[in-house]
Amino acid sequence: MRAEIIAVGTELLLGQIANTNAQFLSQKLAEIGIGVYFHTVVGDNTERLMETIKLAASRSDLVIFSGGLGPTQDDLTKETVASYIETGLVTDSVAMERIEAFFRQRGIVMTQNNCKQALVFDRGVVFPNDTGMAPGMAAEYKGSTFVLLPGPPSELYPMVDRYAMPFFISLLPERQVFHSHVLRFYGIGESALEERLLDLIEGQDNPTIAPYAKEFEVTLRVTARANTVEQAEQLIEPVETEIRKRLGEFIYAEGETSLHEVLVEELKKNGKTIACAESCTGGKVASLITSVPGSSAVMRGGIVCYTNDAKHDLVDIPREVLETDGAISEQTAKLLAENIRHKLGSDCGISVTGVAGPDPSEEKPVGLVYIGVAVDGLPTLVKEVRLAGSRHAIVGRAAKFALFYALQRLKKGERI
Amino acid sequence: MRAEIIAVGTELLLGQIANTNAQFLSQKLAEIGIGVYFHTVVGDNTERLMETIKLAASRSDLVIFSGGLGPTQDDLTKETVASYIETGLVTDSVAMERIEAFFRQRGIVMTQNNCKQALVFDRGVVFPNDTGMAPGMAAEYKGSTFVLLPGPPSELYPMVDRYAMPFFISLLPERQVFHSHVLRFYGIGESALEERLLDLIEGQDNPTIAPYAKEFEVTLRVTARANTVEQAEQLIEPVETEIRKRLGEFIYAEGETSLHEVLVEELKKNGKTIACAESCTGGKVASLITSVPGSSAVMRGGIVCYTNDAKHDLVDIPREVLETDGAISEQTAKLLAENIRHKLGSDCGISVTGVAGPDPSEEKPVGLVYIGVAVDGLPTLVKEVRLAGSRHAIVGRAAKFALFYALQRLKKGERI
Repeated sequence: MRAEIIAVGTELLLGQIANTNAQFLSQKLAEIGIGVYFHTVVGDNTERLMETIKLAASRSDLVIFSGGLGPTQDDLTKETVASYIETGLVTDSVAMERIEAFFRQRGIVMTQNNCKQALVFDRGVVFPNDTGMAPGMAAEYKGSTFVLLPGPPSELYPMVDRYAMPFFISLLPERQVFHSHVLRFYGIGESALEERLLDLIEGQDNPTIAPYAKEFEVTLRVTARANTVEQAEQLIEPVETEIRKRLGEFIYAEGETSLHEVLVEELKKNGKTIACAESCTGGKVASLITSVPGSSAVMRGGIVCYTNDAKHDLVDIPREVLETDGAISEQTAKLLAENIRHKLGSDCGISVTGVAGPDPSEEKPVGLVYIGVAVDGLPTLVKEVRLAGSRHAIVGRAAKFALFYALQRLKKGERI
Repeated sequence: MRAEIIAVGTELLLGQIANTNAQFLSQKLAEIGIGVYFHTVVGDNTERLMETIKLAASRSDLVIFSGGLGPTQDDLTKETVASYIETGLVTDSVAMERIEAFFRQRGIVMTQNNCKQALVFDRGVVFPNDTGMAPGMAAEYKGSTFVLLPGPPSELYPMVDRYAMPFFISLLPERQVFHSHVLRFYGIGESALEERLLDLIEGQDNPTIAPYAKEFEVTLRVTARANTVEQAEQLIEPVETEIRKRLGEFIYAEGETSLHEVLVEELKKNGKTIACAESCTGGKVASLITSVPGSSAVMRGGIVCYTNDAKHDLVDIPREVLETDGAISEQTAKLLAENIRHKLGSDCGISVTGVAGPDPSEEKPVGLVYIGVAVDGLPTLVKEVRLAGSRHAIVGRAAKFALFYALQRLKKGERI
């Protein structure tokens, strides 16, 4: 099956955003063995969009569009594709209800142009938009399948995972299943991971092994193709065992999750609570933990002690320690973790102090970070890490290291 | 002048990397008024690349390629374009010397396939590669100009800045400029904004008006085409004045910036400091403020008081208020903002308390949020907002509303 991806939006041609939707869709289609032959970006222009549609229809079995489903006048993907595939548009009642509910909840009057978002093809399939307003849709025309997805990644990604992927799989001529195990790593980079699995990756066929780096974490997707899920599992099993033998210490979870979700889950399971004291991460650790629905059951709170005064006044770090060891030190990290735990009466306290950059601090280099983890009944752990990249990357990586070490500490037994 | 960008590389079609080169080139071309009409990604395949070249040549004056200039067998952009434009390839002596020097310096033997990288068109222009081995090049054929650039961004970006941009400018027939003003809005949605500017948007030609939503904010780009920047400014001025007349209260800044950057800038300018007490945003406000380099000059710190105990113990909210008014109330927001300001000795205190969901709290609906802003010498401001969307969206929007109200409050004079 030959697929191609068409992103519609003048903002892409002006370079305001990168076409990450095409990247995401390509990864997803590669997983299920659908070959992508072209990506095209075209602006919000009916004539050029139509030219692009005709070319794609002439050479591809599956044509996937992203963008141009919104409420405004320059959103014209749906109308243009509908015209090409000779299909009418009707209001989808579920989508219309969602849109009305959105405005009701916010207590504002819905403008008329929003109704346009609820229009769908009068035949084919509709994909609900669980995180936005405009639904996706698909219809067949003269041997090609046309799929329309919304532009914002926060809407496209979940729609693809939940609705478009099962639809793509249903188009495959042989009813083979593609079954994956996703292993989630922290504390190892993508290239180091690939180096240690190079023989497995080079020799791969079925299952395939694909490393991905995203938001400072590395993920490995092991995908097998077989007649049944059980057969696929049997193909995956020996490969996964070998990967775990080599890199088990860096694996923190399996499947679609994240370090903060796994940490909240682990705390909940054991009826434990957590609190954090953050300097260089400035609230990022607390923000990640509280992003998990239901985290209020385990999160006692946190203090962003950005200045030495705040470290002293709010987290009781002695002035002497701040002057002798420094704010960026093993000793400060240790006391921050222990004191925040006592202060908030939590079972676990975590702390981060370091230099996020771009300028050094206390004559210490950018990227030097200390992480403390104080758990009731265990000696306090302090780790020094040295991180590279922008301020954004250092803060992101440091926050995740804090979650990773807290998780490892809570799951005793495991090596740290 | 019509331009298009063709990225060559199977790794793009597999989703291993995003096409950031096209984004970068588009930004650069927009700056000098060259319109980009298409981006295409095609794999390392001679036949499909040739098909793509022919289509581009038929519709564009300027066709820019990235990738496929390397030493390996699947690097075939140069050979394929040379064949289409009926041009021979010759060794560029400067490039050849660079390649040989590279291998000498690393003390390794150069393999023969590296010589391929020094080949350039036997006519046209060569762009030196200051950060890699394969040079770029350009040549004209039947009215279109073909430009070849290397794939790695670390090579393409400097080559574009130093050599390709002056070349592109030399191609411009009339020295027209495209000049933009970007207006940044908060507190108004994309569709409501468009509705209130519909007559301007529908009548647009020069300047053009393009609304764009990203990370819970709306941006409006007003772009004029003229012979000089001054003339473009004159075209933009009346349109911008009208937009400001209608929607000025929602405009928080102009240009490439963000709410948190503008707030930090405003605080710095006035030598003021800030602190925050967050419940439902869980550290997001502090995290945004501290993401700005140099924010340590203005950020005193913050407290994530997720539980009622934390609100009482850390931010001195009386138990009575928490029991009578509730944690999610105007009164709690007011006291949180005032108390955090006093506690951390800052000029401004901001607070957020509300229901991020997915479940209601204190029998209050998901999306109800109170924001407090306490500024030295002014009565404390408390705003109630009702937000929709996922937990992620509610937290993101609530955090930005807090920054927005703090900013408006600090810039007195402005309506709030």
